[in-house]
Amino acid sequence: MSEMLKVAVLGAKGRMGTAAVGAIDAAADMELVAALGRNDSLEGLLEHGAQVVVDLTVPDSTVANVRFAVEHGIHAVVGTTGWDTERVAALESLLAQHPETGVLIAPNFALGSVLATHFAAKAAKYFDSVEIIELHHPRKVDAPSGTALRTAQLVAAARREAGVAPAPDATETELDGARGACVDGVPVHSVRLAGLVAHQEVLFGSHGEGLTIRHDSYNHESFMPGVLLGVRTVGARPGLTVGLDGYLDLEG
Amino acid sequence: MSEMLKVAVLGAKGRMGTAAVGAIDAAADMELVAALGRNDSLEGLLEHGAQVVVDLTVPDSTVANVRFAVEHGIHAVVGTTGWDTERVAALESLLAQHPETGVLIAPNFALGSVLATHFAAKAAKYFDSVEIIELHHPRKVDAPSGTALRTAQLVAAARREAGVAPAPDATETELDGARGACVDGVPVHSVRLAGLVAHQEVLFGSHGEGLTIRHDSYNHESFMPGVLLGVRTVGARPGLTVGLDGYLDLEG
Amino acid sequence: MSEMLKVAVLGAKGRMGTAAVGAIDAAADMELVAALGRNDSLEGLLEHGAQVVVDLTVPDSTVANVRFAVEHGIHAVVGTTGWDTERVAALESLLAQHPETGVLIAPNFALGSVLATHFAAKAAKYFDSVEIIELHHPRKVDAPSGTALRTAQLVAAARREAGVAPAPDATETELDGARGACVDGVPVHSVRLAGLVAHQEVLFGSHGEGLTIRHDSYNHESFMPGVLLGVRTVGARPGLTVGLDGYLDLEG
Amino acid sequence: MSEMLKVAVLGAKGRMGTAAVGAIDAAADMELVAALGRNDSLEGLLEHGAQVVVDLTVPDSTVANVRFAVEHGIHAVVGTTGWDTERVAALESLLAQHPETGVLIAPNFALGSVLATHFAAKAAKYFDSVEIIELHHPRKVDAPSGTALRTAQLVAAARREAGVAPAPDATETELDGARGACVDGVPVHSVRLAGLVAHQEVLFGSHGEGLTIRHDSYNHESFMPGVLLGVRTVGARPGLTVGLDGYLDLEG
Repeated sequence: MSEMLKVAVLGAKGRMGTAAVGAIDAAADMELVAALGRNDSLEGLLEHGAQVVVDLTVPDSTVANVRFAVEHGIHAVVGTTGWDTERVAALESLLAQHPETGVLIAPNFALGSVLATHFAAKAAKYFDSVEIIELHHPRKVDAPSGTALRTAQLVAAARREAGVAPAPDATETELDGARGACVDGVPVHSVRLAGLVAHQEVLFGSHGEGLTIRHDSYNHESFMPGVLLGVRTVGARPGLTVGLDGYLDLEG
Repeated sequence: MSEMLKVAVLGAKGRMGTAAVGAIDAAADMELVAALGRNDSLEGLLEHGAQVVVDLTVPDSTVANVRFAVEHGIHAVVGTTGWDTERVAALESLLAQHPETGVLIAPNFALGSVLATHFAAKAAKYFDSVEIIELHHPRKVDAPSGTALRTAQLVAAARREAGVAPAPDATETELDGARGACVDGVPVHSVRLAGLVAHQEVLFGSHGEGLTIRHDSYNHESFMPGVLLGVRTVGARPGLTVGLDGYLDLEG
Repeated sequence: MSEMLKVAVLGAKGRMGTAAVGAIDAAADMELVAALGRNDSLEGLLEHGAQVVVDLTVPDSTVANVRFAVEHGIHAVVGTTGWDTERVAALESLLAQHPETGVLIAPNFALGSVLATHFAAKAAKYFDSVEIIELHHPRKVDAPSGTALRTAQLVAAARREAGVAPAPDATETELDGARGACVDGVPVHSVRLAGLVAHQEVLFGSHGEGLTIRHDSYNHESFMPGVLLGVRTVGARPGLTVGLDGYLDLEG
Repeated sequence: MSEMLKVAVLGAKGRMGTAAVGAIDAAADMELVAALGRNDSLEGLLEHGAQVVVDLTVPDSTVANVRFAVEHGIHAVVGTTGWDTERVAALESLLAQHPETGVLIAPNFALGSVLATHFAAKAAKYFDSVEIIELHHPRKVDAPSGTALRTAQLVAAARREAGVAPAPDATETELDGARGACVDGVPVHSVRLAGLVAHQEVLFGSHGEGLTIRHDSYNHESFMPGVLLGVRTVGARPGLTVGLDGYLDLEG
């Protein structure tokens, strides 16, 4: 029992937080020592001896939460959005004063999605053409999805850096919108279909061959293996890591 | 030998014509009696006793070719474009005077494509959502493809007729083009990718389920089974038939 | 209010029954007049004037339930399994005495699945090759799925009837199982993968083209549109109908 | 002109060789200095000052060809099969005596296929389940394909090394072959379908999500970018490299 990792969850009443509480509770190598909601004091983290805190709160709270954790030598795994350049810079300064503490800020905890984006960026420079199709439930308010935008930007950057020519496209007559949205030169198509959850295909093509990388997300359970991986790894990675791919074993 | 169907090809030097000549030549139940190019006289059809003529010429020639065939009691299978409403009406008048002669005008001879479009139109009214993704080689000049436009129109008409509500879509923020081209209310997305030929997916969705109908066309050989089916069937279908699906067995 | 269809559910406490109760309750053109569990008397159907009964019980109960309904002129929509040839024959005799009453026995209420199977059977004779891939969650105990078996049998029957040659296959060296299970000559491949629910692809191919019909089932909500369609239609279809496709508009 | 890489092709009359001759001829940074058939002397390589030789011959010739090249300080890119452990060991001994010369032996030059296999091996340990579906034209004599076997072995090795539990599978009743061939614990399904060329899908799944990596090969042109990449890189990689992925930029 003494070897179990003591973990606390902030934002424990939210949808993601509830799932995280369940996942940590079920993990054989972790002990859930605190599950705090918005009105609970952070002192609870100290009382219960949390070694790692999982922050799944809101943009207004996350900065203070992480600061508190770092100042008390507690590692933090952060899934909350709102970490702009300024906030990240301030956090890095703070971490410089606490060189043994680790923080992971992950915009996406779904391992499959993180891998898919990583692979797409790696493959980007080896093909003549690339397009992205993302498919979501029809209640989604933005198109393209944030993941598709980020994938397109990473793919475009990799191609630019390698000096790849723009993808061939002889289109002369286009019905408005047919060729999708252009994100840094990469066409992105957004499908909204009843019955779907969250899906993305990156299609690469050259003369005579194609490579397709598809990710399907069916529900929020899909984030939990990534959260647990973060919790297990953060203590061994002092300083700031942005993106769960930094914790994956993707070398060579 | 006397039981073989005597078939002639017009436009025999073109890409489609060449393939048709080969396919008819190879068919055990057909005899290729004439393969005429643009400077050959249509009298050759009579000399060789053609029972069915396959017209794969150009819009400027097809009307006169078909008229000649019908006036001589030769059935015609027509793959040439350019048959507008006026031309079709004139042909129907002519056929009324030759009640035993059949003509098939088919904009598409690929059985898989014809079936896919037929099935999509049948399924259209049973789902909340529908979108179309068509994918072609990057030398294509128009987007969406003609087949995608026609499929979208047929799907939309079936939904309108059945009083189906518009597909749900909560999109508020859209990067221009992300949601595709809107064809009679059906979003159509056009992908142009090196290595591809001609492909189309019709995606249907409702709460809890989805149906996808995909057609892949790899080369012009795909048209030949449809041409042969037309040649074999046209003699038993007097009058005008538009669309190969009229010859397929798709009842009940 | 007087125009609403009065509907009762038998087996209302089960998983499917609960969903049906909810769906009927939510339907603007239906009134749920009874939701009976295993200990409730069928007399409740008469008391509340049910016009249509939905039977989602168990093989031991369904025969008596349907007999009671038919004898009292109540139409029945039946999703319970266990209707073998003998039971069906007895029901047909009974219906002959009640010529204005309709019964639908549907092994599958998912519209997308019913359409997919119907389309596959229609397409079967137009292609050189056909194979089936079904993909399910890893808790499934049988392989292939019942739906895949039934689809393969229908596809094989259609090809046999049309005199289609066996699909070409030059395989000489096979690692045991690689080419799948052979169901009436149709190879069927069963994938079991964490994260999936129930999915099926029928792949057709000929020289130069392919047609793929894919159905995805994500949850039991997918059955409800089919149940409602059955309830709305059964009164206009006296006698016995087996299979929801008999109620779909799939002609010509 | 003096900066162009002088390249020779052995096996220049074969299908692959002919394509390679065309691709090298068309490359702006290469000069084709020799295209030798089976009866041509290897001395031609020296006469024309070849810097890199591309061997696309047969198992009986490739060893002598590569030996000749290495002994004369000519780098070699080898696509011929037949390099067993013994041959490879002898080549490594030879290369130890020629430390500035590089040899690439690549069983597969299709960049997309090489990337797909690499990504599959990387992803293997992050998911509960994995299965492989490979789809080929019906003239193929072996099932599964060599690429599928190799992918399965690499995926299985990565999972074993990481201590991943076997994929869950509750199958109790199986129609013989339904669950595919078992390759080191990974189910592999082989589809043979008219119209197809060579395709492979690796499907990964965990609770709530899935990742699919698909490669489509349409024709032999797809090998040429890989051959050219090999020719451009081999001079900077002394010693033996097995597998084109060793030349790809896939780090971190």
